[in-house]
Amino acid sequence: MAAYDELMAHERETQALAQVAGRLSWDQETVMPRGAAEQRSEESGAMEAVLHARRTDPRVGDWLAAAEAPDDVGEAQLRQIRRAHDRARKVPAQLATALARLTSRSQGIWAAARAADDFAAFAPTLEEVVRLKREEAAALAETGTLYDALLDDFEPGATAAMLEAMFDDMRPGLVQLRKRALEGAAAEGVSGDFPAEAQLAFARDLAARFDYDGTRGRLDLAVHPFSSGSGDDVRITTRTAADDPFNCIYSTIHETGHACYEQGIDPAFRLTPLGQGVSMGVHESQSRIYENQLGRSPAFCHWLFGEMRERFGDLGVSDEAAFYRAVNRVHRGYIRTEADEVQYNLHIMLRFDLEKALVSGDLAVRDLEAAWNDRFETDFGYKVDRAANGVLQDVHWSVGLFGYFPTYSLGNVYAGCLHKALRNAVPDIDGHLQRGDPTPATRWLHENLQRHGGRYRPREVITRACGGEEPSAGPLMSYLADKFCALYPG
Amino acid sequence: MAAYDELMAHERETQALAQVAGRLSWDQETVMPRGAAEQRSEESGAMEAVLHARRTDPRVGDWLAAAEAPDDVGEAQLRQIRRAHDRARKVPAQLATALARLTSRSQGIWAAARAADDFAAFAPTLEEVVRLKREEAAALAETGTLYDALLDDFEPGATAAMLEAMFDDMRPGLVQLRKRALEGAAAEGVSGDFPAEAQLAFARDLAARFDYDGTRGRLDLAVHPFSSGSGDDVRITTRTAADDPFNCIYSTIHETGHACYEQGIDPAFRLTPLGQGVSMGVHESQSRIYENQLGRSPAFCHWLFGEMRERFGDLGVSDEAAFYRAVNRVHRGYIRTEADEVQYNLHIMLRFDLEKALVSGDLAVRDLEAAWNDRFETDFGYKVDRAANGVLQDVHWSVGLFGYFPTYSLGNVYAGCLHKALRNAVPDIDGHLQRGDPTPATRWLHENLQRHGGRYRPREVITRACGGEEPSAGPLMSYLADKFCALYPG
Repeated sequence: MAAYDELMAHERETQALAQVAGRLSWDQETVMPRGAAEQRSEESGAMEAVLHARRTDPRVGDWLAAAEAPDDVGEAQLRQIRRAHDRARKVPAQLATALARLTSRSQGIWAAARAADDFAAFAPTLEEVVRLKREEAAALAETGTLYDALLDDFEPGATAAMLEAMFDDMRPGLVQLRKRALEGAAAEGVSGDFPAEAQLAFARDLAARFDYDGTRGRLDLAVHPFSSGSGDDVRITTRTAADDPFNCIYSTIHETGHACYEQGIDPAFRLTPLGQGVSMGVHESQSRIYENQLGRSPAFCHWLFGEMRERFGDLGVSDEAAFYRAVNRVHRGYIRTEADEVQYNLHIMLRFDLEKALVSGDLAVRDLEAAWNDRFETDFGYKVDRAANGVLQDVHWSVGLFGYFPTYSLGNVYAGCLHKALRNAVPDIDGHLQRGDPTPATRWLHENLQRHGGRYRPREVITRACGGEEPSAGPLMSYLADKFCALYPG
Repeated sequence: MAAYDELMAHERETQALAQVAGRLSWDQETVMPRGAAEQRSEESGAMEAVLHARRTDPRVGDWLAAAEAPDDVGEAQLRQIRRAHDRARKVPAQLATALARLTSRSQGIWAAARAADDFAAFAPTLEEVVRLKREEAAALAETGTLYDALLDDFEPGATAAMLEAMFDDMRPGLVQLRKRALEGAAAEGVSGDFPAEAQLAFARDLAARFDYDGTRGRLDLAVHPFSSGSGDDVRITTRTAADDPFNCIYSTIHETGHACYEQGIDPAFRLTPLGQGVSMGVHESQSRIYENQLGRSPAFCHWLFGEMRERFGDLGVSDEAAFYRAVNRVHRGYIRTEADEVQYNLHIMLRFDLEKALVSGDLAVRDLEAAWNDRFETDFGYKVDRAANGVLQDVHWSVGLFGYFPTYSLGNVYAGCLHKALRNAVPDIDGHLQRGDPTPATRWLHENLQRHGGRYRPREVITRACGGEEPSAGPLMSYLADKFCALYPG
């Protein structure tokens, strides 16, 4: 067999094992018995050791040196394999295993601390996570900073400096929009009776409407909504809150965007390095455009208003316009995942700066809660009331995801670009959305972006989908200004 | 590190990976999206390849040669490791992977064929399973027959000849009891309203009563009830039938017996070769004693009658005695898992003889359905009405479990021995069972058998639990004669 074919056969098995490891995480967050946590951390560690051994297998290096790609797709495969191989070789096996074990255990500790509103109960574990991630970053970093080394895992090619520039661009406009909205007339929220079972049933229907293939996935409840898996087994989770149906609805649409990206990748790439979303930023562009530009649009809200009244009865809002304002209301709140489109990126900037400081060593974990609370008050103008609404709200750091948060904002920026291109390319999207049918939009996204998987680099695939226009924050900022100036005419 | 310690560290990771592979099977039978079957077979194949590579790792041979066990437990660990290593080395990696892939896929094909009542739809797949299992048996067999080589996987030390002698001992008594019962007054069945949700809730309660630790496991629905996993993550499944609540109740108690064995093993053996039940026969001794000697006893039926009337209302039987007869009624039926204690072993004998013939090559898969139907009519006196009630009723052959069926009967025999010892050792079990509390019995089983895991050989652990008495069919046959002569006084 030629080196390329041998390498691809090896890689196929590695990808299959990575799917198994991913499903183990799904299991842990949805169905695992709580008493299994310790044993599970050994299991996860063992899987990580297997994957690490495969990725660092010296034969991969030999194959890479000898392999000739048969075509452009093959070139892209080799690029991804080389990337994973180089990364894995830099991280000692012992460290990789230790990280997998720790982050398997630490998630439960975070969840318990969050439930108890007690950062101190989580801090020693987080300290250990930060210590190991800094060690990993040091092993990975060749020229850039520790933070850039971690960021590259989620957004190949991006640097903290690029993101800082992007955030600097966005901040003044967002702060201005936020001020305008908070000074305007406060929008009503919805109220009514939203049984958890009915929310979940609606979530299943919504996922299907946005083209999630339920025969190749499933929807369950979890503390933190997520999407997991690639190819023919892509599972999503959501959560329900008795007094806030939008939490479940928009978490679901968001995760559906992630899942449709994975499900929509060219089947020829299945269980190959190209068979997954190319970066977290591009992934978030899908989840965010499904959630926001489509799901929170006036047209879709028209349908949603009728549908929700049918499912849940009176919603406590006077009319469709008030419902649309409720969906998009800008108001005080602590929680990132519940934030409106204007304030969302401000939540990210806070996390981005804090995690950079944690990774550089400028901020110690013992000072993190105070730093979070200070920064929150500075940025949002009021105090965090409890740790679960502050530093403990997100799962990410507990499982070692440093460098992940800014990809949410990058995803928003990409979503802004894609939305502009989509509106230009496809007529009468609103007509369909008004009937509760996002299909013309999701189909365009599938055709122009999702199916490519890891075939093109992150910025490249966005640029291609946008007819050659390089991504920038401009389209997102214009979209937000138009939308929220109309909502808050001041 | 000493060879023994290195070996045990390696083994610990292997055991953790085996748990992951086992959980993948659980996932497949409970929550996996149906469209994921093809991809899953690649994932299972990849896991199998990893496990096979670890078990055949030449370092294991070196470590085994150099290792010195620190104590008796260490000796037992080495014995189990040597056994797995020898077995794995005999089976070519390609064959092991092919089998894992095929049996992952074939289970779905079996389930579909069973639902469609169409053996022909399953036959080509089963042919391939038989072909690969024969190939595997040929690789494994050193002196014995192909069948013995496969049997040894499930019941180390047992041979077809030993089982044939055991069955020859049992058959006349069972046939006589069966004749007596079927000629006697037919027992009523129960009737009433048994909603699936209420059955499932009751199943959860029953599992807890029999000391299943729900914080280290979970109960779900599946087509075929099973128990899966070891240590702190031992999951069971059950099923519900609208017109037969005993199906769910006794499947649940049966699987609880398996699960309590796994959960009850000395925590010091966790993720070591001793951290699992020692054989399927011993495993079945636990599931069957929970299900039958305890669960179908007059004392437990006293409690069950009251409890079921409270949960389900009228049961359509006149009194407690009639209820007890309904639980234990001997009547015509096609399905092994629903068979009474008398006929159960006759179902096994049929499968044992047919699978021996399949493995030896004396019976072709294309002739299997006819052979099954002929033999069933000979043994039971009436014709199989459809494939789902005949040759397609059990999952085992579809996943390559040849040599597994006779361990059910061996388990019954062991259960008979343990029951005799238990009754001698623990006073007033019936008093507790009458109050719905099997704990004194399960505690004795835990103390005398379950906690040992793989520490002693199968017959040895039974003999020890029985105060030195070697296992034989005698106690089971006496128990059955006493019980069913009383039920059917003739």
